[in-house]
Amino acid sequence: MNAASDYAGKKVLITGGLGFVGSTLARRLVDLGAQVTVVDSLIPDYGGNWFNLDGYTDRLRVNIADVRDPFSMRALVAGQEILFNLAGQVSHLDSMVDPFTDLEINVRSQLSILEACRHENPAIKVVYAGTRQQYGKPRYLPLDEQHIQAPTDINGVNKLAGEGYHVVYHTAYGLRTTSLRLTNTYGPRQLIKHNRQGFIGWFIRMAVEGRTIQLYGDGQQLRDLTFVEDVVDAFLRAGMDEKANGAVFNLGGEAPICLLDLARLIVELAGRGRVELVPWPEARKKIDIGDVYSSYARIQQVLGWQPTTPLRAGLERTLAYYSQFFDQYVTA
Amino acid sequence: MNAASDYAGKKVLITGGLGFVGSTLARRLVDLGAQVTVVDSLIPDYGGNWFNLDGYTDRLRVNIADVRDPFSMRALVAGQEILFNLAGQVSHLDSMVDPFTDLEINVRSQLSILEACRHENPAIKVVYAGTRQQYGKPRYLPLDEQHIQAPTDINGVNKLAGEGYHVVYHTAYGLRTTSLRLTNTYGPRQLIKHNRQGFIGWFIRMAVEGRTIQLYGDGQQLRDLTFVEDVVDAFLRAGMDEKANGAVFNLGGEAPICLLDLARLIVELAGRGRVELVPWPEARKKIDIGDVYSSYARIQQVLGWQPTTPLRAGLERTLAYYSQFFDQYVTA
Repeated sequence: MNAASDYAGKKVLITGGLGFVGSTLARRLVDLGAQVTVVDSLIPDYGGNWFNLDGYTDRLRVNIADVRDPFSMRALVAGQEILFNLAGQVSHLDSMVDPFTDLEINVRSQLSILEACRHENPAIKVVYAGTRQQYGKPRYLPLDEQHIQAPTDINGVNKLAGEGYHVVYHTAYGLRTTSLRLTNTYGPRQLIKHNRQGFIGWFIRMAVEGRTIQLYGDGQQLRDLTFVEDVVDAFLRAGMDEKANGAVFNLGGEAPICLLDLARLIVELAGRGRVELVPWPEARKKIDIGDVYSSYARIQQVLGWQPTTPLRAGLERTLAYYSQFFDQYVTA
Repeated sequence: MNAASDYAGKKVLITGGLGFVGSTLARRLVDLGAQVTVVDSLIPDYGGNWFNLDGYTDRLRVNIADVRDPFSMRALVAGQEILFNLAGQVSHLDSMVDPFTDLEINVRSQLSILEACRHENPAIKVVYAGTRQQYGKPRYLPLDEQHIQAPTDINGVNKLAGEGYHVVYHTAYGLRTTSLRLTNTYGPRQLIKHNRQGFIGWFIRMAVEGRTIQLYGDGQQLRDLTFVEDVVDAFLRAGMDEKANGAVFNLGGEAPICLLDLARLIVELAGRGRVELVPWPEARKKIDIGDVYSSYARIQQVLGWQPTTPLRAGLERTLAYYSQFFDQYVTA
């Protein structure tokens, strides 16, 4: 990727930078020579983890702050060239239990971050982490960016609004914003402490621990997965390419895989664990969306991005990571 | 309409009930024999106006409260059978100047109203007033409900989120919710005090006062208009028909008309005023969405609704109303 070299010396701010994708992005940017500031509030159970920046904390700046604090954000965006805006509450289940906290973080804070950019630093580039959950239950597959957005949970509605603000601030104020709609991201540094942030981290953990991966129904639900380093590539491209301004892009994975095959593959690669099919819990069934996978044709065409890590290779790296650093993610 | 008679004796709550559509709905429901409670906060410049319920205040209950107050809303939804949820900040321009107030009213309050319903009164039926502004700039015309939602202003994003919550509370909790996406509504009792809530009320006022209607650009932008009594018909149908649960419906008007023709028609019918073309102000041009009109095919098919008031007849009634009661809307 040519754009990567452009990051040398760039001043970059990453919200959610102690989290899964944010920390992986931060490490890569440090390696590329960027001046990185990471913002994270380390809210318990959200995914922020000091160990994610292990070995890098002397080459970047970590600023503990909450994106809900508009005053800190105004000070932090000043002087930055690129903002990777990844802070968020990402649990769909938590959003149903505590919808107002999800609203504060995923809606109100996004507005105050954008207001901060507009007033303090209108030349900044902003790349936002959206989600394919914004689409809700697919009307057709693969999901493209023309598919209607009809989320089935509060988190999806709030992420949609957060993205919407980014688009409006481009249209109305010329702020250079981009949204990437992430699908299921997996890899080292993902939260595996609980199972409320999606299935993949939990599957990994169950396998590493030699426990049982439980699948709802027949396990035939199709999903696509993107390895975290590929997601980082997409953020780096979006951050540098002016063609990304004002645009929204799906990410995506290789060919979709059903959960049963995925779980079996993880167990096979781990050499531990087992897979079990169980009936759907009622509350989860109601917000389930069946098969879902995205087309990444638009970002491939406009920014030249595509996923490059084969699923098997990505899972092997992930399993190796958690086998080595398990305690940093579960008992820490 | 057969459903209308079903409202006799029904306990109905209307948020925004001193506003344009809300008061027209309240009056109709009183005429149908419903037990109506109106909630309004009378925020200056939003459209609430005591005169809108003139002659009806002894046959319904007016409760002054702000939908941002979750405690009042919990008490108010208890015991009601139908909630017409029309309270909102409706000015796109104001939403850009003060996005956080728009967020509080159009997003957070919607969530607290739905939480109130879910906890205090899960059997209640809720009909929400959405807007075609949620679609943003049309990718094709007429807009149908499958068109992507990509709003060009904060108000559009926030209304989209407010509607999204209603859909989620149906999907996840079985709450009987419906959203109607209103297009340009016109008629008696609309705010004409300022021009920040859309063009039509302002055109009417200019004509009644014998002043100049200014149009941006060449005035060829197409719009559709729905007479307020037709909008009320749609709310009444949605409130009674179980087929509406969980659904979103566009409203719409007769054949679209360009702003220049509309302005000329208003001047002709008023017998006063004049029309002038002026260049686009930069700030407005940026959030303009060109031609826009909606298809009401879905609600016609599912609920049997269609607009029945011809534009000329609706405008005549509107002009007559404001000629008689002008002072109640401008100097009051």
